[in-house]
Amino acid sequence: MTRHVTIREVAMRDGLQIEQPIPLSAKLDLLEAIVATGVREVEATAFVSPSKVPSMADAAELAAELHRFPDVEFSALVASPNGAKRAVAAGLRAIEYVVSPSDAFSHANVGRSSTQATAQIGEIVAIAHDGGVVVEVIIATAWDCPFEGPTPPQRVVEIVSAAREYGVDRLSIADTIGTTTPGRVSSLIAELRPAIDGLALGGHFHNTRGAGLASAYAAVGAGVSRLDSSVGGLGGCPFAPGATGNIATEDLVYLLTDSGITVDVDLQKAIAAAEVARSAVGHDLPGALLRAGDRKRV
Amino acid sequence: MTRHVTIREVAMRDGLQIEQPIPLSAKLDLLEAIVATGVREVEATAFVSPSKVPSMADAAELAAELHRFPDVEFSALVASPNGAKRAVAAGLRAIEYVVSPSDAFSHANVGRSSTQATAQIGEIVAIAHDGGVVVEVIIATAWDCPFEGPTPPQRVVEIVSAAREYGVDRLSIADTIGTTTPGRVSSLIAELRPAIDGLALGGHFHNTRGAGLASAYAAVGAGVSRLDSSVGGLGGCPFAPGATGNIATEDLVYLLTDSGITVDVDLQKAIAAAEVARSAVGHDLPGALLRAGDRKRV
Repeated sequence: MTRHVTIREVAMRDGLQIEQPIPLSAKLDLLEAIVATGVREVEATAFVSPSKVPSMADAAELAAELHRFPDVEFSALVASPNGAKRAVAAGLRAIEYVVSPSDAFSHANVGRSSTQATAQIGEIVAIAHDGGVVVEVIIATAWDCPFEGPTPPQRVVEIVSAAREYGVDRLSIADTIGTTTPGRVSSLIAELRPAIDGLALGGHFHNTRGAGLASAYAAVGAGVSRLDSSVGGLGGCPFAPGATGNIATEDLVYLLTDSGITVDVDLQKAIAAAEVARSAVGHDLPGALLRAGDRKRV
Repeated sequence: MTRHVTIREVAMRDGLQIEQPIPLSAKLDLLEAIVATGVREVEATAFVSPSKVPSMADAAELAAELHRFPDVEFSALVASPNGAKRAVAAGLRAIEYVVSPSDAFSHANVGRSSTQATAQIGEIVAIAHDGGVVVEVIIATAWDCPFEGPTPPQRVVEIVSAAREYGVDRLSIADTIGTTTPGRVSSLIAELRPAIDGLALGGHFHNTRGAGLASAYAAVGAGVSRLDSSVGGLGGCPFAPGATGNIATEDLVYLLTDSGITVDVDLQKAIAAAEVARSAVGHDLPGALLRAGDRKRV
């Protein structure tokens, strides 16, 4: 069992992408609250089409402010070599490139097939590494696709193998639509293990069907030491119908630390950041600790 | 790992007890929807003080209707020998007697100390067994007490040992205020194992801080094959401040079956029962599948 988990805060990107665009100043207030939690890795934005994802249209402007927080590794999601170039030029230290094993999802998400998206990993890696930037491949819809149904694990293995050959620095597996459960998390990770061959593996879970935290904990039990989460449970995916609710950072912190696993994130400050996120988007968020608060005595 | 989990549906008691009383006819509609799920064990009501728990004041009237559902084992919660007598007289096939290791909680919940409550187990068992009724001791606040803080595991071991000596048929451990997490679930069960010595052990979890399903799954991983849940996540405890939200039956069914563990409950019918519960109480319920539905393709 992993004894320390690195949490990557994704509220700024996966959290906000499905929301109506909010002003840069509101994003920076949220970012300040997020950085104050102690988190070491933050997915800050996405360099993607502003017409497809209007809430990320200010990616370059936001990136220009990140120097304020020198102790945090900021990353950005990209969907193409062009996006990778923009992210590197904007000074990001890490990029994430999403590949789905499903052709239908790939077409809906990035306008090309799974094979075409996989084949671009090499170009993305070259652009990033030329700029001294870390590359992570996120395998989206790793368990289920909203269009094609269950994902054959072998397809995930193939993408992992391809990503390794292309020289990526990290991998993660994403339950984009929040359908997986602990049993399938453990079994997929076991199937991937030989192909991963020691590369850092992260997990990205949504709580859409209530099983997100249980799945995250199962991933930790299977050796994953990097997890994505979003303060307040902010988030979803505009191209995956029904995909709502990243696992909430504060709920994850509570669960992991209470279970004896250390994290970089302070619980009270994560709750405070979730409150900032709730104000920023102007609606309630699904995180449980936002309502219940930390364990307390009466 | 357990391959089959017996779910006990607790919406009728733990679910409704914190709500405003609803008419007997509405309870029976809910019960009908619950029985239709295929569940084999239902906690139907509580024989407790009607002034303290007005929503359970119709316990005898409800019990008189249970003959309609001959294939289900109905149980009732009791808090005293007198309650046990009433439950046996009303024809219940099983009773649950709650003991908390915390004196403060015991006083708030049943008006006597933990030791006094434990000492009554023998009398309860005698009353039940004379009537051919199964007895379960539920250890409430098994991990944390809202008044006293963390529960010393040794106190839980002592109650388990006492319950065994008094001849109870089953035991369960309850996270009454929804504060425990998978790591502490696994470790408490490991500590209890020698004292349990083969007796059936159940788990009762609340999702108050988002960790209820993860804790339930950890309990299954530690060998527990009986879990309580409530359709829609209806529920709470009137005497435990901040205790809201039993784990939702439909979310539990989804998680377990998707993880390869069989249950007696049909998922779609559990969602339908959760909808009946929501109508019965007239407000939204926290269950995730009530919003997201089962995994589906677009």
